[in-house]
Amino acid sequence: MFSGAQISLYPMADDFVGVILGALGALDPYRDRLRIETDDISTLLVGPPEVLFPAMRDLFVAASASGRHCVLSAAISRGCPGEPDDPICRSDEVGGPVIPLDERKVAAIRAVQATAVTGQATAAQFSLYVMGTGDHMDEIYGCIDFLKQSGVYERSKHFCTKLRGDAGAIFATLNEAFCRFGPGAGHVTLDITVSANSPSAV
Amino acid sequence: MFSGAQISLYPMADDFVGVILGALGALDPYRDRLRIETDDISTLLVGPPEVLFPAMRDLFVAASASGRHCVLSAAISRGCPGEPDDPICRSDEVGGPVIPLDERKVAAIRAVQATAVTGQATAAQFSLYVMGTGDHMDEIYGCIDFLKQSGVYERSKHFCTKLRGDAGAIFATLNEAFCRFGPGAGHVTLDITVSANSPSAV
Repeated sequence: MFSGAQISLYPMADDFVGVILGALGALDPYRDRLRIETDDISTLLVGPPEVLFPAMRDLFVAASASGRHCVLSAAISRGCPGEPDDPICRSDEVGGPVIPLDERKVAAIRAVQATAVTGQATAAQFSLYVMGTGDHMDEIYGCIDFLKQSGVYERSKHFCTKLRGDAGAIFATLNEAFCRFGPGAGHVTLDITVSANSPSAV
Repeated sequence: MFSGAQISLYPMADDFVGVILGALGALDPYRDRLRIETDDISTLLVGPPEVLFPAMRDLFVAASASGRHCVLSAAISRGCPGEPDDPICRSDEVGGPVIPLDERKVAAIRAVQATAVTGQATAAQFSLYVMGTGDHMDEIYGCIDFLKQSGVYERSKHFCTKLRGDAGAIFATLNEAFCRFGPGAGHVTLDITVSANSPSAV
């Protein structure tokens, strides 16, 4: 199954290029397990979820350590029809046999609880899209149940769910939402916005 | 049908607050036809597509006139199950009788051609999501055919399509993609990233 993300990092600073270049080293531990392509709008990361989410987390935490207001925005996708299969995307986290929704919720909560703390306070919001199935809202409501027990749930908003907490738990929660809900072999996407150091944050 | 957008504006500048506040006046002509709510991650605009897209365009063009690298990111949605109907969202652009895909493509091309120029050079990329129907890829491929004839098509990327041109034609193209593809009463979302003044732009 093809999986990956188009990511953009926005440091609200005159020296945004310096902040981005200064954070890119955070991707180094993941480079041999990702295909990376950059243009003027976004950077494509192709690889399995268990590499994508930690890589995005470490990039975001490194940029946010500048103290500047930084936002990471990403469109993350798995199982998109028409995309070629790619060996680099092989994953143990998705595509397995479907297990009942209640069991997936419990497994997702445990995975978030087991995540290491990064020390970076973070706000996030995201939308989960499950395509090509008539019962897509069941999976989405199941995911929302998990989110409410994730420890980082803030509130429901129109079109998305808002999270707040440590960057470690935030990205772990996004990873679980992406991998455990929607059909294993289905077309699932996640649009995320992750923010640090906003002067508007409560 | 409920429709709206969660939008975020990212000026890559130390004075990002000033750039945002300086651009907000561009929303004034639309305020009586929108419900607007802001938090630290995004601003919700609730209203019909024919108001949403011009409002986003004018806000983006006003911020970009600062000369700073600015990005507008938005999740735009119509027909989301579970959202209340809202009189402010009444639209003549969606929800009508389904007409054949080929006719919709032609109408979309004409609408973009009839759009006024803003003078703001713009790059954009977006993903169209059509939920709850087994043939969602037919609608997406039909939309891609339209995009290739829109005059602002740049290239296909993994998970999204990239556009480049005047901000007027860009937002008109996004509006057409959102309104004319996917079932009229269906759950359709668009994730857009619109960028100006990037030092990386070719």
